[in-house]
Amino acid sequence: MIAPERFYQWLSKENVLSDQNDKAYAALDTSNGIKESLPHLVLKVQTQDELIACVRLCLEAKTPVVIRGAGTGKSGGAIAVVIDISGLNRIICIDKTNLLAEVEPGVILSHLKRAVQVHGLFYPPDPASQNYCTMGGTMAENAAGPSTLKYGTTRNYILGGTAIMGTGELFDFGKRCPKGVAGFDLASLLCGSEGTLAVFTKLIVRLIPHPKSIACGVFYFDDQDQALSAVNKVLTSGHNPRTLEYIDHACLEALSTLKPFAHPGRAALIIECDAYHDDALAELLAIGHTLKPYTKEMSLFISKKDLDNIWRLRSSLSDACTHYLGHKLSEDIAVPLGRLVDLQRATKNLSKPPHLIVGLFGHAGDGNLHVQIMFATKELTSVAQEICHKVLLIAVGLGGTIAAEHGIGLKKKDALSLEQSECLIEVQKRIKKAFDPYNLLNPGKIFDV
Amino acid sequence: MIAPERFYQWLSKENVLSDQNDKAYAALDTSNGIKESLPHLVLKVQTQDELIACVRLCLEAKTPVVIRGAGTGKSGGAIAVVIDISGLNRIICIDKTNLLAEVEPGVILSHLKRAVQVHGLFYPPDPASQNYCTMGGTMAENAAGPSTLKYGTTRNYILGGTAIMGTGELFDFGKRCPKGVAGFDLASLLCGSEGTLAVFTKLIVRLIPHPKSIACGVFYFDDQDQALSAVNKVLTSGHNPRTLEYIDHACLEALSTLKPFAHPGRAALIIECDAYHDDALAELLAIGHTLKPYTKEMSLFISKKDLDNIWRLRSSLSDACTHYLGHKLSEDIAVPLGRLVDLQRATKNLSKPPHLIVGLFGHAGDGNLHVQIMFATKELTSVAQEICHKVLLIAVGLGGTIAAEHGIGLKKKDALSLEQSECLIEVQKRIKKAFDPYNLLNPGKIFDV
Repeated sequence: MIAPERFYQWLSKENVLSDQNDKAYAALDTSNGIKESLPHLVLKVQTQDELIACVRLCLEAKTPVVIRGAGTGKSGGAIAVVIDISGLNRIICIDKTNLLAEVEPGVILSHLKRAVQVHGLFYPPDPASQNYCTMGGTMAENAAGPSTLKYGTTRNYILGGTAIMGTGELFDFGKRCPKGVAGFDLASLLCGSEGTLAVFTKLIVRLIPHPKSIACGVFYFDDQDQALSAVNKVLTSGHNPRTLEYIDHACLEALSTLKPFAHPGRAALIIECDAYHDDALAELLAIGHTLKPYTKEMSLFISKKDLDNIWRLRSSLSDACTHYLGHKLSEDIAVPLGRLVDLQRATKNLSKPPHLIVGLFGHAGDGNLHVQIMFATKELTSVAQEICHKVLLIAVGLGGTIAAEHGIGLKKKDALSLEQSECLIEVQKRIKKAFDPYNLLNPGKIFDV
Repeated sequence: MIAPERFYQWLSKENVLSDQNDKAYAALDTSNGIKESLPHLVLKVQTQDELIACVRLCLEAKTPVVIRGAGTGKSGGAIAVVIDISGLNRIICIDKTNLLAEVEPGVILSHLKRAVQVHGLFYPPDPASQNYCTMGGTMAENAAGPSTLKYGTTRNYILGGTAIMGTGELFDFGKRCPKGVAGFDLASLLCGSEGTLAVFTKLIVRLIPHPKSIACGVFYFDDQDQALSAVNKVLTSGHNPRTLEYIDHACLEALSTLKPFAHPGRAALIIECDAYHDDALAELLAIGHTLKPYTKEMSLFISKKDLDNIWRLRSSLSDACTHYLGHKLSEDIAVPLGRLVDLQRATKNLSKPPHLIVGLFGHAGDGNLHVQIMFATKELTSVAQEICHKVLLIAVGLGGTIAAEHGIGLKKKDALSLEQSECLIEVQKRIKKAFDPYNLLNPGKIFDV
């Protein structure tokens, strides 16, 4: 194992953590129930040069390297931590002329979003962790969120950057211009590779004009299946909303237990529209017209205060489900749009009320639901784990995926073969080897090589 | 070399072409001036099974395989042809519920676009070759077009598919649902890999609702630099047009020589807006307001006939430039938006009128211009070739790319190192090896391995 002293030429002693207590934080992310042993060392870097030097020292000593941003990952992707990049948090430039920003990988996502909005610009990715997660983490996981429906995932916004591969080589990838097809699209490949191919030292992201007007509607339904069928009706009727979020009865109950609010229906859709010209409300009203035969009640909002309230409630859904019966496991899956109702029926069949209830919420417009397995006693954990596995099988059986936006990491690597053929997994291992021949970058994540 | 008879178990004799004259067509695409020797054989396949069997026979015999769709490529990517997939042209399904289409790789792009529009759906990619090029070709090259500005390139629309890698293994990749992060994004990697990693046998693409209203404006300027500066003004003023195309003075002259039309200015922008609700004309008028201080004259159009006329003129620009002085070479490059004026000045400095004129047109909103080197006599070819090389150097010097949308192929493989480091090219060669260990799929394209 590499000695802490090796790093003192680059880092001050207080940024080289070898004490058990000091480094315990780095062994956790927000993926419940996945534990790994403590890392050998935690290094807190503040500059790109420190990051590059520390990664290279580790690689030379054949010591595995894992990068930690804010630890908001959901797949156990950041558990065996070595280098903490949260101090590498400078927005290098916001280039309004060229509609791009250059950032260090430790920049908090919401900091960038706010900084570009001052210039009338928009960086769309909006995972629930946006106030904490780092840009490097969102790139490693290809983070998504409600507005992915209209604007796409993080991958749609990475232009290029600089990274270190497992050979220790520092390389620029991608481009600074909006288009380019010189060689393979390594920016797309690195995005979502969960830190297994390279370590980002700098990122260049694309910005777009900020929409001028936003309107949000909450639509209540008497019937849960009807609410999910309505998702399809909206998207196939020529509407192009920015978000189309679903909350089922169990999750509405969980949410109103945490934060009491009126919910006149057994299921809800949160549909938000935005527009550059004219009024986003016009599109929302048209969607309301499409949904009129199915919905029980609709409330439309345009004030910033109301919108903030709605999205704050939406953000607390995951916590609300944890608190509802005291315990929770969840799965992040997606299915083709037309199979959402089938997904709901099949997963709800796994409920064992009153002590174990399966709820659903999430980005229904993208076919992506977060299945919440809420349960009352610790003893039900193994039952809940079995249900998690069944949920993955259901998703694959419906033509969907075991991982819609939270990655594979440690949590689902055993399940990858449910969805992907051996041949497909093998070629990915060969790609891993192309970047990281000694398996030193975030080893053991996604698959074992 | 593999004998023609080996394929008779799969193909009828007339689809196994070994006669010099019969196979001459397969040695050409639309990249002028790049010649390769005739292929050993040309196989015309009609079904996925035939394609799979023929590719595997070649691979087993260690015979290089090149796939040809419509031969509309611009980079010499399809010259050493073996398998012609233009007969593999079935639209397998248009799934309105799940907002996707499944197609064979030989489907003509415009056929798919028209077929989905009947269902109110939209498949945005729109290269100038859309009436001839195949879906497989657009995937291999990550084709783009005017509407890429708002809707992104082909890569934004590939969900997944089936392909054969160089090992002969048939594999499904990607997903059928809108979102998914299980493993590396192989769909994005295969898209734009120019046939060097795998042979597509089936493609699944994402569809979106078709915009309801379209409006197009032609804006004329007295000054060419002012027209390109205006591109930036539009995009940084919060507008979100669908296209932002530039035509300089030389190309306007070339076009009006071929098809006489009034052009009251020295440069033009074609700006098209579309909208799902309200009127696209409203956004176009707002853009007109932004451009008022700079533009000399603007004409706005909303009728289908007018729009068709404008885009038909736009499509004939490349031909017009070929005919203007009798000969032409062109380069496809992109630069950051703020460097368009610098690009124009630097490239126009290379003109040697009246016998050699450098013109510019293209997707200025994406920073992507097609530099037209028009010349009067064959003897000027080598001068034009030198200018082409200088154009690439200029693009890289301005922070841009040597290949915006037409690929690297044979044509630019020597130039790849102008833009990419040795380390970046080497890792791409290792990725190539991960898919095609014997270098049998479209060998010698992008780089030599």
